[in-house]
Amino acid sequence: MQGKNIPKKVVLAMAGHDPSGAAGIQADIESIAAAGCHAVTIITALTAQNTASFQELVPQQSDNFRKQCLSLLSDITIDACKIGLLGNLVIATVISEILDKLDVPVVLDPIIKAGTGKLLTTTELSTYISRELLHRVRVLTPNCAEARSLTGCKEIYQAGEKLLEWGCPHVLITGADEETIQVTNILFTAHTDPVPYQWERLPGTYHGSGCTLSSSIAAFIAQGNAIKTAIEAAQEYTWKTLKYGCRLGHGQIHPNRFHNS
Amino acid sequence: MQGKNIPKKVVLAMAGHDPSGAAGIQADIESIAAAGCHAVTIITALTAQNTASFQELVPQQSDNFRKQCLSLLSDITIDACKIGLLGNLVIATVISEILDKLDVPVVLDPIIKAGTGKLLTTTELSTYISRELLHRVRVLTPNCAEARSLTGCKEIYQAGEKLLEWGCPHVLITGADEETIQVTNILFTAHTDPVPYQWERLPGTYHGSGCTLSSSIAAFIAQGNAIKTAIEAAQEYTWKTLKYGCRLGHGQIHPNRFHNS
Repeated sequence: MQGKNIPKKVVLAMAGHDPSGAAGIQADIESIAAAGCHAVTIITALTAQNTASFQELVPQQSDNFRKQCLSLLSDITIDACKIGLLGNLVIATVISEILDKLDVPVVLDPIIKAGTGKLLTTTELSTYISRELLHRVRVLTPNCAEARSLTGCKEIYQAGEKLLEWGCPHVLITGADEETIQVTNILFTAHTDPVPYQWERLPGTYHGSGCTLSSSIAAFIAQGNAIKTAIEAAQEYTWKTLKYGCRLGHGQIHPNRFHNS
Repeated sequence: MQGKNIPKKVVLAMAGHDPSGAAGIQADIESIAAAGCHAVTIITALTAQNTASFQELVPQQSDNFRKQCLSLLSDITIDACKIGLLGNLVIATVISEILDKLDVPVVLDPIIKAGTGKLLTTTELSTYISRELLHRVRVLTPNCAEARSLTGCKEIYQAGEKLLEWGCPHVLITGADEETIQVTNILFTAHTDPVPYQWERLPGTYHGSGCTLSSSIAAFIAQGNAIKTAIEAAQEYTWKTLKYGCRLGHGQIHPNRFHNS
């Protein structure tokens, strides 16, 4: 229980808005709250989408985006940052500018496609992530398709090594998008052997599992946990949100981020 | 605990976005989750603001707003709706159009000013609320200043009666913005004597208490509670979020919507 003089740790989420609440900033807000932190959020893009399909991406005007960031950060001290959907290249450059002023650990979930399949990142934005964002990021959480798309490597261990070489010290490549019996996530850390994590594959497909994972990693880091501890606790939490997921729409299942309540 | 076959009740929140997460859709998402429901959200307006001041209101384009609503509502069934900041008159007319297609209880928090003082509603938007929105609404939750501004009545009991006459069957006028020793909220219901509720006045000022109250009323109604029961439970919940509030910024205090966790 938090009193007025025991402030919670604060995690800044910069991400898209998904009206269904399964993914995007709502996934971030809920995962960060479930970890006992408080989320502050800046919206990169509004979207028309639901659990079955994606209709429209509306990135914010970058000057409004910058104004919102500066107003927020002039008032509230941030302990960690999670970045999701970038919206477009101009917003990505404002994010780099903001990150340079913040001395906090950053988790980036490099969203290339919506969970329902729509491509959300241009080639030049992917290049920007690799060349300009990665070295500002403490933990990267691509799925296998995103790791391959960013690096051009088909083989996951090669992709992981390349992402480390590009300057991100911790890369967790998630494997739910592979057709394996179990889900294997692999943690790549500079100068350390890769660590595989095996998870029971749950039936169905889920909307917002990547957002849930990356924002809970950021929350656990904000609370002072070691990176590896945070990554392990967040995988455990995320798997449970899927196990207790709710089918609220006609397409992908909603993670249940308050499954303990 | 919710399984895949025990879906949560769903509350649609149409409201503004506040980066600090104290007010707006984050207040709605958290209050609705704390009540055990799932929020789906459509953003009326983005804002640059913090706990001390308000810089900018950026209403969505109404055609994007409509597209997002239609995509969401074609996929997910809603049990109740909460409306906060309207953004502008065009968005308010789209909201009326959407409400006419939804046969669910609606709670409207008629936001005239930001908690930090900035005027967010034009005279014509206030008139639209009174003439076009009120009769579509099951519960209205103005504070004293908003009740006076909407009705032109200085006296709160007169303002409450006028809001009932305009077609809203339940009006809870909250009194935290009055300079009284205790906070008195008054529930006006058609053909019934007004019911006052007394609450200990807590020290300091809070950002997002009205959003918290109105969205938790909507969540309790979505769960099948009687209107009066929902209004009483939501007042109790909201008062506790303030009692356990956290000072995260330099201005108003953040309600702590997960004070039990």
